[in-house]
Amino acid sequence: MSDTVGKSIKCKAAVCWGAGEPLKLEEVDVAPPQAHEVRIKILYTGICHTDEYTRSGKDPEGLFPVILGHEGGGIVESVGEGVTSVKPGDHVIPLYTAECRECKFCKSGKTNLCGKVRATQGKGLMPDNTSRFSINGQPIHHFMGTSTFSQYTVVADVSVVAVNPQAPLEKVCLLGCGITTAWGAVVKQPGIPGSTVAVFGCGAIGLGVIATSAQVKASRVIAVDTNPDKEDWARKFGATDFVNPAKLPEGTKIQDYLVEITDGGLDYTFDCTGNVHVMRAALEACHKGWGVSTVIGVAAAGQEISTRPFQLVTGRTWRGSAFGGVKGRTEIPGLVEDYLQGKVKIDEYVTHHRTLTDIAEGFHDMHSGNCIRCVVDMQ
Amino acid sequence: MSDTVGKSIKCKAAVCWGAGEPLKLEEVDVAPPQAHEVRIKILYTGICHTDEYTRSGKDPEGLFPVILGHEGGGIVESVGEGVTSVKPGDHVIPLYTAECRECKFCKSGKTNLCGKVRATQGKGLMPDNTSRFSINGQPIHHFMGTSTFSQYTVVADVSVVAVNPQAPLEKVCLLGCGITTAWGAVVKQPGIPGSTVAVFGCGAIGLGVIATSAQVKASRVIAVDTNPDKEDWARKFGATDFVNPAKLPEGTKIQDYLVEITDGGLDYTFDCTGNVHVMRAALEACHKGWGVSTVIGVAAAGQEISTRPFQLVTGRTWRGSAFGGVKGRTEIPGLVEDYLQGKVKIDEYVTHHRTLTDIAEGFHDMHSGNCIRCVVDMQ
Repeated sequence: MSDTVGKSIKCKAAVCWGAGEPLKLEEVDVAPPQAHEVRIKILYTGICHTDEYTRSGKDPEGLFPVILGHEGGGIVESVGEGVTSVKPGDHVIPLYTAECRECKFCKSGKTNLCGKVRATQGKGLMPDNTSRFSINGQPIHHFMGTSTFSQYTVVADVSVVAVNPQAPLEKVCLLGCGITTAWGAVVKQPGIPGSTVAVFGCGAIGLGVIATSAQVKASRVIAVDTNPDKEDWARKFGATDFVNPAKLPEGTKIQDYLVEITDGGLDYTFDCTGNVHVMRAALEACHKGWGVSTVIGVAAAGQEISTRPFQLVTGRTWRGSAFGGVKGRTEIPGLVEDYLQGKVKIDEYVTHHRTLTDIAEGFHDMHSGNCIRCVVDMQ
Repeated sequence: MSDTVGKSIKCKAAVCWGAGEPLKLEEVDVAPPQAHEVRIKILYTGICHTDEYTRSGKDPEGLFPVILGHEGGGIVESVGEGVTSVKPGDHVIPLYTAECRECKFCKSGKTNLCGKVRATQGKGLMPDNTSRFSINGQPIHHFMGTSTFSQYTVVADVSVVAVNPQAPLEKVCLLGCGITTAWGAVVKQPGIPGSTVAVFGCGAIGLGVIATSAQVKASRVIAVDTNPDKEDWARKFGATDFVNPAKLPEGTKIQDYLVEITDGGLDYTFDCTGNVHVMRAALEACHKGWGVSTVIGVAAAGQEISTRPFQLVTGRTWRGSAFGGVKGRTEIPGLVEDYLQGKVKIDEYVTHHRTLTDIAEGFHDMHSGNCIRCVVDMQ
């Protein structure tokens, strides 16, 4: 048993002190896990646009100071009372979408949105309404129930899953958000094999949707992005076509163009941009009578999607998913096995590496246009 | 064989000569049916809001002069070459949503929106791009491929279905639109039995959704209407609750109120108003994680629906249906049998009766607030 058990741990973390401020490396105190909590030594973490969205101050629900990060991989250091699902030494992935298996949502069989820790997670706190992070006694907020930008973090036991320790954490940490989100958004829709698909936005999520659509044998996978450099990426991940909306004849809407080249529209479309205008285009690119458009991207606060209701009355469906509809504790271990067996790509997404010391640079990488995922070595 | 076969028939019809003009009783010439066409003696017709929408001039695609009407019942007078699905003497219901069983849409198994006669129907013409109606040689437009406000009409053979002649046409004519639309919108969603439902708008469509939801054993059916007189109607058709949005405390949105009284929102909601603000409320009244909102009402031209994409990302689905997703030729005969066996209400919707001579009064009835359906005796 580690000699840290039951004690506070001092470690390094990237702290965001206020809206719009750069991350700052700090020494934080990480209190021991309370009942039904797990303390994790984070070894690797990805950086995702949602981290940047909150850091930038655009998220009106953002709380500061905060330790961001929600795409991590690590090893359980210790567990609080009553924790049975993981044990010290387990390789784990923290889950920003909890899975308690007891609440109305978990028991519904219809959604992955667990209600158990939602309220306190939204307040940047653990379920007992306090934080485990502090600097000189000042509490620091948790983020998305995960806070993976710290060398140690504490999460609820419903917010973590153990995975095969043979899997490299520097890779499978990315299953904590982007890749799983994309995978789930496709595989949870049983009609996609044999169907036509268009994917708007070729970041990590978009590429994941492309890869999974190709994997389940969609008949055609059209990638859409205004960055021409993404064509190679998209094709490498399985896209059959690439369309750059910026290169269409003036006045031609992307949705009209797609409807034209697909003889009526797509069977399935996905917004992976977070742009509400793109979300509309994705819906309207769907085939009359049966097209289904899934919103995956997260829009900025206050923005709204719109369309003519005729689009729906004539048989298009507008839906969305969070974390791909995936129940993390139940499904991620299998995804890790799929990765180990070569069925799910992860390595191919990693374009950049950073250390905790230069994590702020990782945020710059993300904006560079040639970054799919940056993985941060936390130790 | 009738001595009218192969000849033009002179009969009475209600003609709308221009946008916003009242219907005018005229003597029209109805040409004989061409190949794959059917001439029908219309005995009864309902009046629907879509007729009024076009009459009023609000429909930018409205064409004039025109013979409106799309909720009719009649008897086949004669058929053109190649017609095998119906024969003279058959009791029939014209279908504004055709079913050819040959086009991409019909064969998809995913939609009732047949493509076969769509283009010419939208132009107010028969499939050969001409009209069968004329007055003193001036062509009069068809409407929705049905034009039931005429004592005789001509329709495509894919746009008509024969039904059990024991069923009273003065009742089953209403299966030509409203009641079938409502029925289909419910029964095509297999999750409704045991689920909670809210229905916005208690006109004929809304009452049909209420009745069908009750019939398939939804656990709770909440009717929503600003007209307090509709409470009795809604309860008579099977609603368990009635909510008047106009009577909520000031500042309380109907969607928030419904979410509150249903512990998180409805499993299924239906917009039966055509009001885009109500469509939004219906979506947002859905339960996070799994609520499904169906748009049935037809909005005015140019109007748009909107919401925050977060509503979709957190698991709500926005969809719609036209003619309830029902394939008329395949499914209406069974609905007629269900009516004859007392399983489907029709009589209960009929509040007003008119004759062709005073059909314009029927339009006034529709606006009176105490009219569910007005049936017009055409002979």
